[in-house]
Amino acid sequence: MTITLIGSGNVATVLGKRLQRAGHTILQVCSPRNAEALGAALRAEARKGEAPNAAPEAIQDPKNLKKADLYLVAVSDTAVKDVAGQIRVADALVVHTAGSVPLDVLKEASKRYGVLYPLQSLRKETDPDIIPLLVDGSDEDVRSIVEGVAKTISPMVKRCNDAERLFFHIGGVLVNNFPNYLYTQTDLFLQDKGQSIDMLLPLMAETVRRLKDFPPAEVQTGPAVRGDEATIRKHQEQLEGYPELLEWYNAFTNKIRSFYARKYGVHP
Amino acid sequence: MTITLIGSGNVATVLGKRLQRAGHTILQVCSPRNAEALGAALRAEARKGEAPNAAPEAIQDPKNLKKADLYLVAVSDTAVKDVAGQIRVADALVVHTAGSVPLDVLKEASKRYGVLYPLQSLRKETDPDIIPLLVDGSDEDVRSIVEGVAKTISPMVKRCNDAERLFFHIGGVLVNNFPNYLYTQTDLFLQDKGQSIDMLLPLMAETVRRLKDFPPAEVQTGPAVRGDEATIRKHQEQLEGYPELLEWYNAFTNKIRSFYARKYGVHP
Repeated sequence: MTITLIGSGNVATVLGKRLQRAGHTILQVCSPRNAEALGAALRAEARKGEAPNAAPEAIQDPKNLKKADLYLVAVSDTAVKDVAGQIRVADALVVHTAGSVPLDVLKEASKRYGVLYPLQSLRKETDPDIIPLLVDGSDEDVRSIVEGVAKTISPMVKRCNDAERLFFHIGGVLVNNFPNYLYTQTDLFLQDKGQSIDMLLPLMAETVRRLKDFPPAEVQTGPAVRGDEATIRKHQEQLEGYPELLEWYNAFTNKIRSFYARKYGVHP
Repeated sequence: MTITLIGSGNVATVLGKRLQRAGHTILQVCSPRNAEALGAALRAEARKGEAPNAAPEAIQDPKNLKKADLYLVAVSDTAVKDVAGQIRVADALVVHTAGSVPLDVLKEASKRYGVLYPLQSLRKETDPDIIPLLVDGSDEDVRSIVEGVAKTISPMVKRCNDAERLFFHIGGVLVNNFPNYLYTQTDLFLQDKGQSIDMLLPLMAETVRRLKDFPPAEVQTGPAVRGDEATIRKHQEQLEGYPELLEWYNAFTNKIRSFYARKYGVHP
């Protein structure tokens, strides 16, 4: 498939490279910034893989878009609408990659439009093992094509409408952004104590890995679920100079206690 | 080294197996419950590995302890003191495995005592890649012996006094127990919407993996740190029927906004 990337940030870079590696031809990279850099990176990768047709051209202006099978709009959620308004590609396929933006934001850009949303945190520098993809399309034919493209770069592909995609977008915030903020506060606490969060990384990895085998409610550990009040008091004492951490500690401890009291009728 | 396990739960099982695999001889398993089961499991593993000397005996009563180089007290934090009171092994080495219990809880049990604390969530059924170990001892000689034993079963071993061990114990609660509770709530939300948290597991794994390369404060993502108020409002609307999740959503969103406002002077 011939593909044009619209956008040159983290999502365009990571998905663009995977699409090219999967055998698709990236024709152009269109972006007001960094289009040349991403185009050059893709050309360099294509040369290594001896893909003679792959020579993505960098352009700034959507007016210079060439004909492609698929236009991938990989810009920030807030910019999708604006970018979509600048594209007119008749009946070529246009998809966006945003979690919280409706499918039909693209309806003026083309008759055939869809969504290819990576449910993963993407950075240019990193290369996650698996990028789950949520796909949608303006009709069954489009949905099926987008799903097919998605499957060339990911083993986890799921059809989702706007509402379902938004549920996963919220879920991503809850299981990624919020835990990461707890990691940040813990990191600062341990640094303040002359220690490093590095010693905790295997525990954090195991906590996530375990969810392949058990639902999280069944593997809750720690003093709050055990009703170990002596340990809770020790922890609270140590956190007295850290008001925000103490606030989180008390809030989670209370919620965990009452959740398991409701669930199991213990620790009232 | 000859080792006796006091306790037969998750920590005794996982550490006992690793110690045996590392070439140590487990002499006895002492526990009022399940000592026979753990003894049998260790004997079975030893036979497979053709270790003729390894035939751990199961006993219930600490009065029947035989002479060993090391007694490993692997019971719950709340039970360590009680169990320590029942052991008298003169100058043999006794160590406990608790995160929040002081080293000297063992001082009546032996002249030589220490701590070997696994900074990891251990279950009989699972086998984490790495178990970081925090070690301590009643004197330099003991510390050095405990450290040596620890290094036979883990690549991450760190000397920590009582206070430092408690900091990591608190850290473990903050980066494991509390995120797991967020995972639980997210799981219930997605189930309620007919979806599954499974699609989010690669994102959760990547969030943790990334901390090998970057401090968490530098890889914070999501609408709160971007100041994307439109997406925040969309999420809040969707969470209106889920009061506890909405509470977490608002609390984290506000804290993240003000943390990055202080740090970077944006999103006031």
